[in-house]
Amino acid sequence: MSERLDAARVREWGRLFSNWGRWGPDDERGTLNFITAERILEACSLPRRGLVVSCALPFDERGPQSGLAGRHNPIHTMLADGGDALAGAQDFLAGGFRYADDAVTMPLQCGTQWDALSHVFYDGRMYNDRDVRLVTSRGARANSIDRIRDGVVGRGVLLDLPRVRKVPWLEDGTPILPEDLDACAEAQGVSVEVGDVVLVRTGMMTRCLEQKSWQGYCGGPAPGLSVTCARWIYEREIAALATDTWGVEVIPNETPDCFQPLHMISLRNTGLLLGEIFQLDPLAAACAEDGNYAFLFTAPPLPITGAVGSPINPLAIK
Amino acid sequence: MSERLDAARVREWGRLFSNWGRWGPDDERGTLNFITAERILEACSLPRRGLVVSCALPFDERGPQSGLAGRHNPIHTMLADGGDALAGAQDFLAGGFRYADDAVTMPLQCGTQWDALSHVFYDGRMYNDRDVRLVTSRGARANSIDRIRDGVVGRGVLLDLPRVRKVPWLEDGTPILPEDLDACAEAQGVSVEVGDVVLVRTGMMTRCLEQKSWQGYCGGPAPGLSVTCARWIYEREIAALATDTWGVEVIPNETPDCFQPLHMISLRNTGLLLGEIFQLDPLAAACAEDGNYAFLFTAPPLPITGAVGSPINPLAIK
Amino acid sequence: MSERLDAARVREWGRLFSNWGRWGPDDERGTLNFITAERILEACSLPRRGLVVSCALPFDERGPQSGLAGRHNPIHTMLADGGDALAGAQDFLAGGFRYADDAVTMPLQCGTQWDALSHVFYDGRMYNDRDVRLVTSRGARANSIDRIRDGVVGRGVLLDLPRVRKVPWLEDGTPILPEDLDACAEAQGVSVEVGDVVLVRTGMMTRCLEQKSWQGYCGGPAPGLSVTCARWIYEREIAALATDTWGVEVIPNETPDCFQPLHMISLRNTGLLLGEIFQLDPLAAACAEDGNYAFLFTAPPLPITGAVGSPINPLAIK
Amino acid sequence: MSERLDAARVREWGRLFSNWGRWGPDDERGTLNFITAERILEACSLPRRGLVVSCALPFDERGPQSGLAGRHNPIHTMLADGGDALAGAQDFLAGGFRYADDAVTMPLQCGTQWDALSHVFYDGRMYNDRDVRLVTSRGARANSIDRIRDGVVGRGVLLDLPRVRKVPWLEDGTPILPEDLDACAEAQGVSVEVGDVVLVRTGMMTRCLEQKSWQGYCGGPAPGLSVTCARWIYEREIAALATDTWGVEVIPNETPDCFQPLHMISLRNTGLLLGEIFQLDPLAAACAEDGNYAFLFTAPPLPITGAVGSPINPLAIK
Repeated sequence: MSERLDAARVREWGRLFSNWGRWGPDDERGTLNFITAERILEACSLPRRGLVVSCALPFDERGPQSGLAGRHNPIHTMLADGGDALAGAQDFLAGGFRYADDAVTMPLQCGTQWDALSHVFYDGRMYNDRDVRLVTSRGARANSIDRIRDGVVGRGVLLDLPRVRKVPWLEDGTPILPEDLDACAEAQGVSVEVGDVVLVRTGMMTRCLEQKSWQGYCGGPAPGLSVTCARWIYEREIAALATDTWGVEVIPNETPDCFQPLHMISLRNTGLLLGEIFQLDPLAAACAEDGNYAFLFTAPPLPITGAVGSPINPLAIK
Repeated sequence: MSERLDAARVREWGRLFSNWGRWGPDDERGTLNFITAERILEACSLPRRGLVVSCALPFDERGPQSGLAGRHNPIHTMLADGGDALAGAQDFLAGGFRYADDAVTMPLQCGTQWDALSHVFYDGRMYNDRDVRLVTSRGARANSIDRIRDGVVGRGVLLDLPRVRKVPWLEDGTPILPEDLDACAEAQGVSVEVGDVVLVRTGMMTRCLEQKSWQGYCGGPAPGLSVTCARWIYEREIAALATDTWGVEVIPNETPDCFQPLHMISLRNTGLLLGEIFQLDPLAAACAEDGNYAFLFTAPPLPITGAVGSPINPLAIK
Repeated sequence: MSERLDAARVREWGRLFSNWGRWGPDDERGTLNFITAERILEACSLPRRGLVVSCALPFDERGPQSGLAGRHNPIHTMLADGGDALAGAQDFLAGGFRYADDAVTMPLQCGTQWDALSHVFYDGRMYNDRDVRLVTSRGARANSIDRIRDGVVGRGVLLDLPRVRKVPWLEDGTPILPEDLDACAEAQGVSVEVGDVVLVRTGMMTRCLEQKSWQGYCGGPAPGLSVTCARWIYEREIAALATDTWGVEVIPNETPDCFQPLHMISLRNTGLLLGEIFQLDPLAAACAEDGNYAFLFTAPPLPITGAVGSPINPLAIK
Repeated sequence: MSERLDAARVREWGRLFSNWGRWGPDDERGTLNFITAERILEACSLPRRGLVVSCALPFDERGPQSGLAGRHNPIHTMLADGGDALAGAQDFLAGGFRYADDAVTMPLQCGTQWDALSHVFYDGRMYNDRDVRLVTSRGARANSIDRIRDGVVGRGVLLDLPRVRKVPWLEDGTPILPEDLDACAEAQGVSVEVGDVVLVRTGMMTRCLEQKSWQGYCGGPAPGLSVTCARWIYEREIAALATDTWGVEVIPNETPDCFQPLHMISLRNTGLLLGEIFQLDPLAAACAEDGNYAFLFTAPPLPITGAVGSPINPLAIK
């Protein structure tokens, strides 16, 4: 790679690796279109153990958020509880029926999540040539998360880089190159196929949990995908990609004059569904156990109208 | 049925149809235990079309909530948006990267949802003989929704009562008896099996959407399951049950001195996972189309620590 | 009045009745500058009875909001309560100390409130020639409510129009003209002076409370100030103006092609502090009782950084 | 002081310094009753300069909260803003009218605040012998903050301990004894009178702001009132007391077996209104400037129905 990685290159690659118009001018699903009915059926045939593994971090006040960009950890409050029952506050309910109710206030990007195709943009446009003026205080009028309410179901593949490299985690700042992804898949005996949901484990979350500190997790130096993966993502025609990090990409970014360049290219131009803050440790353990790195994967977003992302509980079914 | 239906009967049936201790004193999953690895694999073999159908109502301010019990519709706010990009508020981000972020404030019971096993209780105890003192302003310390984070994946069955009865919807106050469920299943050519997630369509939501009014949907008269289904639920050993109504049960309740008696018995004693406010119309249409009322079903809750419920986007995979 | 009232006239009057630059290019307090130290001392000399009267509507779910513009009534939740104490959830606190805590989620414009000078703008500019680009998802960087944290203290005057006219309330759509304000003051034996906080009672809230319905209160037809009051406001050099209505102005607005024209002129150009949803009935009763319509008035906003408004509890001290 | 300070003593003093029943069995205002009409008029006669000084800390994400007890700093979000205007999202509003709206989610105890008389209790009772069962998830049905909506207006007195002692701030753990309060008042040439609102400056907030760290501010070691002030508070018949600290009292508490004993006695038994997290530095500077430590004081709570506290913007008028 002798090319200079800068903001101009990002735009060039944006043009090269674009899926705008590929599925028509009205498309709002992007690379999820690669998951055909046939591929869904194939994915359903993968499970061998009948084992379900969640890839969600618990949603609570011990989450990774530090306030960066106004993101805070979930705030869970009770609207009714057992104490009310003891206090007699529910005595108006006949026959001894008692109940608890609750509520949450949370940034949709605060934990395990999908980015909607309206989450990132540049030069005034977002995926499929839509104007950013469509995303205002009242929500996104295009490319919002509710447009993929019938997803995400497909074949999932875990690429467990630290395990293949025999390290507990990749160091901060480690870029993951396309050839690293291929080498990892090969070492694991799995192939990445069209329409796959690719889960890339860096071990960064493992380290944070082990060290009981999220210091630097949000926006700080991190291992992650190199911007040069943009071509790989485009050519492999994967449906979605997720990591156990805050922002998928290697930080510091390889483009000194451009923030999160892979988001710019892959989310905006390729129309890729990106997942972040996935808890991949239990899945990594399960895959290591049975040696099988492909599985049925399902991670439905909450169809919050006009939302630019959604908290999720991704499930791998092995 | 010559027995009188009252609060005493509810407690008697609670004892009769109890699964407390069945999966050990520490169990917090209840009837989800019926979904064995084998049944998951069987469920994965069901899809024939590769079609995914969401059973979630959109989460937004047009939802059904009226304020009853402090429940309001979701409040979606933007933390960053396209307007900010236009206003230059994101110019500090290098290379033209621009983004949108958002947040939600919502009761966990305000839309399509699972009730956790800590959601309903009586006589000071909840599922598996746990004290209601465990559910306080800081959340539920037992039977909370995060305990079923590795669910719900299994065989789903739709019982489309209005279609079988050739009516657009069941009238408010119509009780659905065990024999109605059986007759519906038979008419559809499907069987209800151990470990199934049973989705019962009453058409009440269809009517509200058609009439563009949620008047009475929350807590008002409604078609729904008779309390006499408690035995059926227990004996069939189903894993979960959901409806397109606010509260699963027929309202007015059949027990004049007891509110939501089926919740009391089935949720608290049987340990049944209950789903509410499911949007079953698209699924009903798809099942009518192919004549197949059994499917792979997945509806992972958000693992909000200590929560007594979770908004969900249930997916039927046919 | 032979002039046509339209959007062009609004802009003309905006130029005529402008205080931009009057208190320097950095001013963010607008007409509050009319409240000099001397006038504060004079206001403090007004009370005769030692009576304090609140002009705030209770902040709760029974408030006037209907969802218009995303405004909802306050949502009050408990973070700790007496039920927790009963349940033993606070037993970790030594010596029997027990407590309750709570939280609120509320639009700052949902109840009795001040509009900040960043609340309304047109043609890309707000008060004192500031760019609207300063008001983004991260708040207002100029003219925000926290800039008047040392206010509002001064002389208050109540103009109780229905009482003077011997009607329970003004009918919806009734415009209040400058001469109406003067006639009301004269009938009450009070004068409006430079630096005054003028409270105009229309009785609309009285009617809503009496009829137990807020129907139409938010954004519907209402009695209110005529746009022709813009000159009166400017020339009288009042410091603030508030009403018992949703939006101060008569609705339907007198300018068919322009929404809330008095806000446009008086808030943006004159720099007037506007108050809305004031509960003026108790104050009206107290003034009628003693025949004294001038009083010490204090209504400090919460200095929420970057906010474009604030809920308040205005106090009249007689 | 030869008496042992422990939980038993707290209860004894609670009985000795009780105002339960003093203003009738229905009273919910406690020591605010000491502020008679006459004293309000006297307070209004105090100002000499016409100067208003806010005692509120800005309400924003840079506030002191660390998450202790579920308290977080205010979350301010925009519902409409200048970016929307630029994006055309408000083009439906006639005549160029454009606006910004906002909302806040905040614990009522997160910043400058009053504790309601339902905020602290012990042995199952709160102020005026009311049952703690009245405080549940639906709010407080007695002693709530809305019961003092017509307050707080009266004579304020600042006791600026660090200035009198010629130190920048009191060290953490420094107890403030009754004789310290008297000595400070005397040194300042001011007296504490019946019905006064007493503001005690420790300098702790000054230090946190100077050191740009709230570390330890919430719940950690702090200078503050000794529990032995309980008698002084009761006998002086003050109306309210506030400090620039998190919890008024010295921490570690002097009662090893009892948390926040002064709250227990003075709030619950004496019925004292307590204020916390007051920003007293500007007021201290103003008082030092003119040598006058008594002033008109006003700090109206937001009348949030059923709330156990309220954020406030206290104003001293000199």
